[in-house]
Amino acid sequence: MLSEVLIQSISKIHPLSQALIDRLSNVTRQVSFPKKTTLLTQGNICDKVYFIEKGLARAFYLKEGQEVTSWLMQENDFIFSVNSFYGQKPSYENIELLEDSILTSLGYHELQSIYRDFLEFNIIGRVLTEYYYTLSEERTFSLRLQTTKDRYESLLKMQPEIFNRVPLKYIASYLGMSAETFSRLRAKVK
Amino acid sequence: MLSEVLIQSISKIHPLSQALIDRLSNVTRQVSFPKKTTLLTQGNICDKVYFIEKGLARAFYLKEGQEVTSWLMQENDFIFSVNSFYGQKPSYENIELLEDSILTSLGYHELQSIYRDFLEFNIIGRVLTEYYYTLSEERTFSLRLQTTKDRYESLLKMQPEIFNRVPLKYIASYLGMSAETFSRLRAKVK
Repeated sequence: MLSEVLIQSISKIHPLSQALIDRLSNVTRQVSFPKKTTLLTQGNICDKVYFIEKGLARAFYLKEGQEVTSWLMQENDFIFSVNSFYGQKPSYENIELLEDSILTSLGYHELQSIYRDFLEFNIIGRVLTEYYYTLSEERTFSLRLQTTKDRYESLLKMQPEIFNRVPLKYIASYLGMSAETFSRLRAKVK
Repeated sequence: MLSEVLIQSISKIHPLSQALIDRLSNVTRQVSFPKKTTLLTQGNICDKVYFIEKGLARAFYLKEGQEVTSWLMQENDFIFSVNSFYGQKPSYENIELLEDSILTSLGYHELQSIYRDFLEFNIIGRVLTEYYYTLSEERTFSLRLQTTKDRYESLLKMQPEIFNRVPLKYIASYLGMSAETFSRLRAKVK
């Protein structure tokens, strides 16, 4: 059974035929994982995309032995490691769950065969790829051009719930600052 | 008339019907611009995607008054500003030509109507979006994780012709270093 949340989320982009829903039901799997589960380890190939029905995930990479958070995703997001999934090659990043989560998984090869058999699924794939590409560029430009204070205030405005759900050290590294700088900034902004 | 180079480039992804070729011929324009032409200015909306038939372009943004090159694209590449084009909102970046160039342009709204009328064009759009998204992520990870020497050597291996075609100061800022560091590095690696 394909989850209603997932059907609603993608049918906003393009209506799904019954045949497409049946196919997706056959090839996806709903999985529950506890908090701290590692979905992908650096050096491995990302062979699945996950849809988050409930929960929260982060991607991080290691820089000089330190974990740097590259993104935080939550309900209704699709998560995967871009280069690794599209190119089916080893990942730079790790992906781990920060909460007990319910996910729907779809394998790389199953996705490619849906793209071949259901032309209209390419509309959904294109629009989602454009969306996540845009988010990624916005993160990059924010790190390049905004001050730490502006980045903090944008996140507070865009995803206020993150501050209650994610350990502050991960938010600090996502915003490109040390935990110490981040707590000084929070104290000042309050 | 749609250029043969463009037809070849996109029909590798998915064969083009005559009706689709006719439509593309009607809505695209072949344009020639001299070196140093600005295709997009920061703050404006990127309302066209360009295919480079001949020539070379760079994107750059301003950081504390300095131009920082974010990408370099050449023959057979599609160029646009990601956030601005997909979201039809003001661009963070500038795009300028570094050589006399021949380009094919396609407007945002024309592209959307082709996506609606020719379902199979979504395959082409999806695959190209995945490709440029992957390139963008690889640039980001290279800047984050590789040493300046490794970045220089990767570029030398992947796009050796860039070094004859692009002013060295732009290559230096693309590689995330000052012009001085870059010339010392080149002297050492040679």
